Amino acid sequence: MNSPDDTGAAQDPRADAADGRQATALDMLRDELRAFAGEREWEIFHSPKNLAMALSAEAGELIEVFQWLTEDESRHLEPAALGAARDELADVLLYLVRLADTLGIDLFDAARRKLAANARKYPVDKARGSRRKYDEL
Amino acid sequence: MNSPDDTGAAQDPRADAADGRQATALDMLRDELRAFAGEREWEIFHSPKNLAMALSAEAGELIEVFQWLTEDESRHLEPAALGAARDELADVLLYLVRLADTLGIDLFDAARRKLAANARKYPVDKARGSRRKYDEL
Amino acid sequence: MNSPDDTGAAQDPRADAADGRQATALDMLRDELRAFAGEREWEIFHSPKNLAMALSAEAGELIEVFQWLTEDESRHLEPAALGAARDELADVLLYLVRLADTLGIDLFDAARRKLAANARKYPVDKARGSRRKYDEL
Amino acid sequence: MNSPDDTGAAQDPRADAADGRQATALDMLRDELRAFAGEREWEIFHSPKNLAMALSAEAGELIEVFQWLTEDESRHLEPAALGAARDELADVLLYLVRLADTLGIDLFDAARRKLAANARKYPVDKARGSRRKYDEL
Repeated sequence: MNSPDDTGAAQDPRADAADGRQATALDMLRDELRAFAGEREWEIFHSPKNLAMALSAEAGELIEVFQWLTEDESRHLEPAALGAARDELADVLLYLVRLADTLGIDLFDAARRKLAANARKYPVDKARGSRRKYDEL
Repeated sequence: MNSPDDTGAAQDPRADAADGRQATALDMLRDELRAFAGEREWEIFHSPKNLAMALSAEAGELIEVFQWLTEDESRHLEPAALGAARDELADVLLYLVRLADTLGIDLFDAARRKLAANARKYPVDKARGSRRKYDEL
Repeated sequence: MNSPDDTGAAQDPRADAADGRQATALDMLRDELRAFAGEREWEIFHSPKNLAMALSAEAGELIEVFQWLTEDESRHLEPAALGAARDELADVLLYLVRLADTLGIDLFDAARRKLAANARKYPVDKARGSRRKYDEL
Repeated sequence: MNSPDDTGAAQDPRADAADGRQATALDMLRDELRAFAGEREWEIFHSPKNLAMALSAEAGELIEVFQWLTEDESRHLEPAALGAARDELADVLLYLVRLADTLGIDLFDAARRKLAANARKYPVDKARGSRRKYDEL
């Protein structure tokens, strides 16, 4: 995504192109995780299959924070639960970024496209106040 | 994280502070998702509890892409599987960003802190080539 | 399933009907869990929504046992990993039984029906040695 | 568990020993799944690692049934949602039984032991009406 080809910015792809600049948070994490895994020689363990499992396990830990709370309680977490949620959200993001990297997927671009697709699937006038899936709207 | 207090940048926290600028990809998604939910009046459904469930369900769909593949196959996905993985990764990121927003958590900051903590828990010389948990190193 | 209507056994549905007798392992766990929750006044927390979350969190802990192992290693677990797997499998079963009870679902009957449906969806001659989904066979 | 050694029933372990007889529902599913996989030559795909992933993906589909419902709504599912829940519960049980079989784990025995351990960790007088984890009681 930050390659000149993608952004059309020949000299510094992050400097001008809106998308290029926006992606840098995820790019930075990607690069740091790549270095982190490389230094520890963990690439051999970091198959996409294994990383998908690790992400899913972290999602399970996130669920654990909320499982016995009411929805209302989940909106007003106590400090300990909020700290636990923060840690698990971070873990999910780290594995997500690492998994995307091993697959050569641009996360930010994928998310933007999905969001655009969701906007088409859930038109405001039909989806307002509804929990239905798009194919039931 | 982008508040003056956090970045120490009094006037425009995104302009100069490296961290502030880096966070913009996630900030942009956060703002778009907030608008997306607001227009559809979905805030009532978007309790952190429910969003954690939705994230976990998407992580399950991600797992499904890989469950019958060997690790090696997962490193060389066929186009259909790669497209499916991209969609599911996007879904996980979107719910992750939305969940963090409803909790008031700065995802990028949380990830950076977690990465720093992981670097302390997994020193390079002890963790190299090992799958052990930090408390077994 | 153990009702006279379902088993056709008018007097003691468990005494003669093969299915009725077979279900007793799950029935016993169901009854024990119902008593367990009742004594602790946990019914208020045991909504199907919450129990589905708890089951999913345990599935995440199960995943954690296997995430860095090769498939071959997962077939020959070391004692500590095997013990961890046993605990997590037990947790999943307990929440599964409890969740089915709160929904009034007969787990054994549901599993038998699903297995029969799977046999139709995956005919032996087409499915042999294949990982494809039924709609791609 | 149904071996004479485990049940102490020398002649027919299922005939008299309570535990032996109770286990038959899960044993029957185990045997049927073993035959199902064998006929289709799926043993090669059914590593414990892969089966744990499949179970987790089904748990994700179960979550999807409940994610936008209130707890109260989850206690009174509409027929379509109840049918979906039944199917997903069945899928989880089938993978659970199959996974336990590939690991040589007796599910019923594991669940009984876990339940006994939980009874010790959550004494009635301390746990009544509380959602706290055992180490916080």
